Amino acid sequence: MNQVVQFGTMQMLVESLLDGFVSTKDVLSAGDFGIGTGEGVDGELIIIDGVAYQIDGEGQVHEVGPDFPIAFGNVHKGDFEFLKEYEDITLKELQDEIVKEVKTKSLFFAFKIEGDFDAVQTRSANKSTRPWPSLSQIAEGQNVFDTTDTDGIMVGYYSPKLFQGAAVPGFHQHYLSNAHDFGGHVLGAKLKHVKVSVQMLSGLDLRLPAENADYRAADLTQLDHLNAAIHAAES
Amino acid sequence: MNQVVQFGTMQMLVESLLDGFVSTKDVLSAGDFGIGTGEGVDGELIIIDGVAYQIDGEGQVHEVGPDFPIAFGNVHKGDFEFLKEYEDITLKELQDEIVKEVKTKSLFFAFKIEGDFDAVQTRSANKSTRPWPSLSQIAEGQNVFDTTDTDGIMVGYYSPKLFQGAAVPGFHQHYLSNAHDFGGHVLGAKLKHVKVSVQMLSGLDLRLPAENADYRAADLTQLDHLNAAIHAAES
Repeated sequence: MNQVVQFGTMQMLVESLLDGFVSTKDVLSAGDFGIGTGEGVDGELIIIDGVAYQIDGEGQVHEVGPDFPIAFGNVHKGDFEFLKEYEDITLKELQDEIVKEVKTKSLFFAFKIEGDFDAVQTRSANKSTRPWPSLSQIAEGQNVFDTTDTDGIMVGYYSPKLFQGAAVPGFHQHYLSNAHDFGGHVLGAKLKHVKVSVQMLSGLDLRLPAENADYRAADLTQLDHLNAAIHAAES
Repeated sequence: MNQVVQFGTMQMLVESLLDGFVSTKDVLSAGDFGIGTGEGVDGELIIIDGVAYQIDGEGQVHEVGPDFPIAFGNVHKGDFEFLKEYEDITLKELQDEIVKEVKTKSLFFAFKIEGDFDAVQTRSANKSTRPWPSLSQIAEGQNVFDTTDTDGIMVGYYSPKLFQGAAVPGFHQHYLSNAHDFGGHVLGAKLKHVKVSVQMLSGLDLRLPAENADYRAADLTQLDHLNAAIHAAES
């Protein structure tokens, strides 16, 4: 059984540690499906069948080159199992259905949602410049995009609540339309007719920026800041 | 750079998930230095140069066989670097010195403390029986051992605070005397003359009991219980 490979932590983003400490090449060598963000929160990434796409801060889709620097990402070797088809359901309702089907909140798993969507809302941010801003400053400057009647794919991960702060707790998914004209970090969606596949994962292969001086020097022992960010994201 | 491989989580122990879900053979295939505990908190384990020893609940030391079931463990491929020699220092003081030397609290690292000890205090528990008791019930029944003028080795890990609940936060070390007549989970020590080696680690390779029905079914989403246990351990 595969693990989810995670580069960096959610805490790093909250604490403005936004250096791209790995390249797309490194990330793709760890898996062929995934999600992530570039250095300085440079757009949203989605990896499908070994190809990494960026939805930039203006909503434009690009395939990214092997040396593109990545600040945070989740990736794994795809070996999905078809779960079920669903019709006329919100993303939130679908997530509850998926948890019922897999019958556990204690394991990491990957999922893929493919098909026709009535509506998808995403966000993406333009790359920040050094010194890196706070994640809340980035959130203020990000763009929110809406589309209707789109066909495409969501790729995402479920992480058990225990790992909040290290990982993004619960569901986290990015979207790319089949026409490559829409995508990003998914805020919400209404699904018309989709095929859902799931891959249970045996654990977490977490790779930290061990050679990064800012990461090593950062005071990451005060968890109040992180907990406030998690609380704000959940409310 | 190697990762620390961790089998299971601290939360599992707090939530009475004490099945031995891996064998010593599995653990040794992931590394040749480490610490852990057997199924049902069956003593304390220390792995030195690829050999796994158990200090049982009565303080007796045994080499464990390949099929011995393990409920929790940390292990890695040893490639330590000599750091410094220290004399007449408490374990707590030495830990502060090690953090000063490695200059980070943001990375996992392994350490080895070898030499002469004025005093070492350890604990170890006898194996519980199913249904597994709570960790606090186990703590009530554990034995505490003291010795003076001992020579031996401590093996341990430092885990960044972010990972508390998944890992044991901060320092965690087990001891084995060279005569194999004393050891366990270290509660405190006074070090006479020791050689300290350290190995920085690039991340965490966490392996969960993905096939274990009790683990999958457990409600691990309520973190209050876990946080209370962490708070109790720290106070």
